[in-house]
Amino acid sequence: MTPSTPYLAIDLDRMQANIARAAAAATERGIALRPHAKTHKAVEIGRMQLAAGAHGLTVATVGEAEVFAEAGLDDLFIAYPLWVDADKAARLSALVARGAAIAIGIDSIAGVDRLARAGLAGRVSVRIEIDAGHHRSGCTPTEAGDIAAAAVRAGVDVEGVFAFPGHAYAPDARERAARDEAEALAEAATSLRAAGVEPAVVSGGSTPSFAAALALDSPVTELRPGVNVFGDAQQWELGSGAPEDIALTCHATVVSHASGRIVLDAGSKVLGPDRAPWASGHGRLLDHPEARIVQLSEHHAVVELPAAAPEELPALGSVVRVVPNHVCIAVNMVDELVVFDRGDDAVPAARWRVAARGRNA
Amino acid sequence: MTPSTPYLAIDLDRMQANIARAAAAATERGIALRPHAKTHKAVEIGRMQLAAGAHGLTVATVGEAEVFAEAGLDDLFIAYPLWVDADKAARLSALVARGAAIAIGIDSIAGVDRLARAGLAGRVSVRIEIDAGHHRSGCTPTEAGDIAAAAVRAGVDVEGVFAFPGHAYAPDARERAARDEAEALAEAATSLRAAGVEPAVVSGGSTPSFAAALALDSPVTELRPGVNVFGDAQQWELGSGAPEDIALTCHATVVSHASGRIVLDAGSKVLGPDRAPWASGHGRLLDHPEARIVQLSEHHAVVELPAAAPEELPALGSVVRVVPNHVCIAVNMVDELVVFDRGDDAVPAARWRVAARGRNA
Repeated sequence: MTPSTPYLAIDLDRMQANIARAAAAATERGIALRPHAKTHKAVEIGRMQLAAGAHGLTVATVGEAEVFAEAGLDDLFIAYPLWVDADKAARLSALVARGAAIAIGIDSIAGVDRLARAGLAGRVSVRIEIDAGHHRSGCTPTEAGDIAAAAVRAGVDVEGVFAFPGHAYAPDARERAARDEAEALAEAATSLRAAGVEPAVVSGGSTPSFAAALALDSPVTELRPGVNVFGDAQQWELGSGAPEDIALTCHATVVSHASGRIVLDAGSKVLGPDRAPWASGHGRLLDHPEARIVQLSEHHAVVELPAAAPEELPALGSVVRVVPNHVCIAVNMVDELVVFDRGDDAVPAARWRVAARGRNA
Repeated sequence: MTPSTPYLAIDLDRMQANIARAAAAATERGIALRPHAKTHKAVEIGRMQLAAGAHGLTVATVGEAEVFAEAGLDDLFIAYPLWVDADKAARLSALVARGAAIAIGIDSIAGVDRLARAGLAGRVSVRIEIDAGHHRSGCTPTEAGDIAAAAVRAGVDVEGVFAFPGHAYAPDARERAARDEAEALAEAATSLRAAGVEPAVVSGGSTPSFAAALALDSPVTELRPGVNVFGDAQQWELGSGAPEDIALTCHATVVSHASGRIVLDAGSKVLGPDRAPWASGHGRLLDHPEARIVQLSEHHAVVELPAAAPEELPALGSVVRVVPNHVCIAVNMVDELVVFDRGDDAVPAARWRVAARGRNA
């Protein structure tokens, strides 16, 4: 039976096409794909990505790594500058003891020392995070050589370097962010070589910069897009994903026509409250491209449909498909994803557990 | 054992004081308290609110009602204009069959008819939602009389009227929103009486408007604040909650000193991405009132501490207490709340399940 609204629905045809398209594009350029599984948090989808040729998965936390490793998807890069406290050390140790191949991010000598003191040198490898212009975590390209040298002294394997060009999340910023990433990673690789470490992996990220990164002549050997498995309203508005490829929507019921607008039962507790300064609203409707969510609270989305006369509004009780602004946040709100073979099916083909939901630690 | 960061921690002393303070303020004015349980979604906390004198609980969804009713907390108002489809009709019917007292919101004649056609007239009562200036759902005060008359014709019990003055969530808007609410509810009550319905309940809402609503000479018989059980950075900045009363924080580890700032392992997937246009940042630090989260992604909070020299920054690996902007969203991200008798305890006194987490439908 179709669940009561609101719920998150996957259009399986579209999702599989998205997975195949990303895999083909990377293969054509000879670049490895390591999709970021934080977007979907579902074992079934990770398996499809690997079957399509992905070399492994990217995750953000030890908790996510545990979920995927337990399901046998155990070639994992935790793309995060982990601070390895006693709890996380024990859990990383358990992961490698069961045969998982784990690399973690690092952006400081203190972080490397911590990993070594936890007894994980030679068991968990590291990739050094480079700030390529997003200015979040990550060291400078020149600092990377010092960190690599410290790792070698501590007996820690350095796989290479990685960056997340998050500044691609802005209008007309995708090409520039991909160039920034390529330049920063090239400098960092040089810095590692000067320290006597040959980077086996030079890894870039992000869905908006994906196409531009593939088009560049760059040192990148691996890419880690996440969102492109589904697409979302942000990618739609940035131009890095077309609405006809959007594979995840929130099915929501029209509960009110107050003030001549429509109010949906999908609020920020299922869509996620994300709204970038450049976003045109709090989310969009897949079948009404002109509509915008103009007000969002926990269980209400107020939608304006410009130029729709009151009698043209979707009827009270009708179900519409909402495109969340940021799909990674929406998926993390729910316990399961309702899977339809096609977007217009009435009966779900499957329900997949969001197995890594809430695994923040 | 203390969990690995990030996790949400309750300071039990402060939370109990917040519950007692709200109850005393309402009692002093002879106004019933029906706290909104969407904020905490935890049975243990609902029980404490009832023990302190609350007349029942408010929830937002049928799913939340089911969780609290199952635990015996079954005097419930679903403050939402529900569209009663077949699934929700069956579930509401099951709730009243087990003895729960359920009222739901309604803002249209179509909604009333739907409830009656579902066979719930005389079993589930309604409260008519009035738009008091927030312009979300809700009818006009004059429309309320027509809806009440339709309900009477359909055999549906009308308990009264309610409003949510969400426009109190802005700087210096609390008094005005409380006045708007009182005026709209007074007009609506008059409109009901003209239709031959005496409103037994005239219910207002919101934490920011709570004190102002209590101070007014108004027709309100009940208030439904939610956030004031914990407080959060929004209430801190609006002036409707003091930092020394904040009872829920996210314990987070400093993982990076990139660019001379601190980066925490608490991102939008545990704090929630909420940021109102007037908020001074993406969240604050309880023990560093001058600090602001200036950049937030799924697992990173970048914090600036003005005037802190690099050597004064909280050390790598140290744990800080983050105050989320909007606590209702943060709580809905996690499966459990870690309870400390006092904020500076090392060992948790309990762990409470966020039993209604994700119950959006």
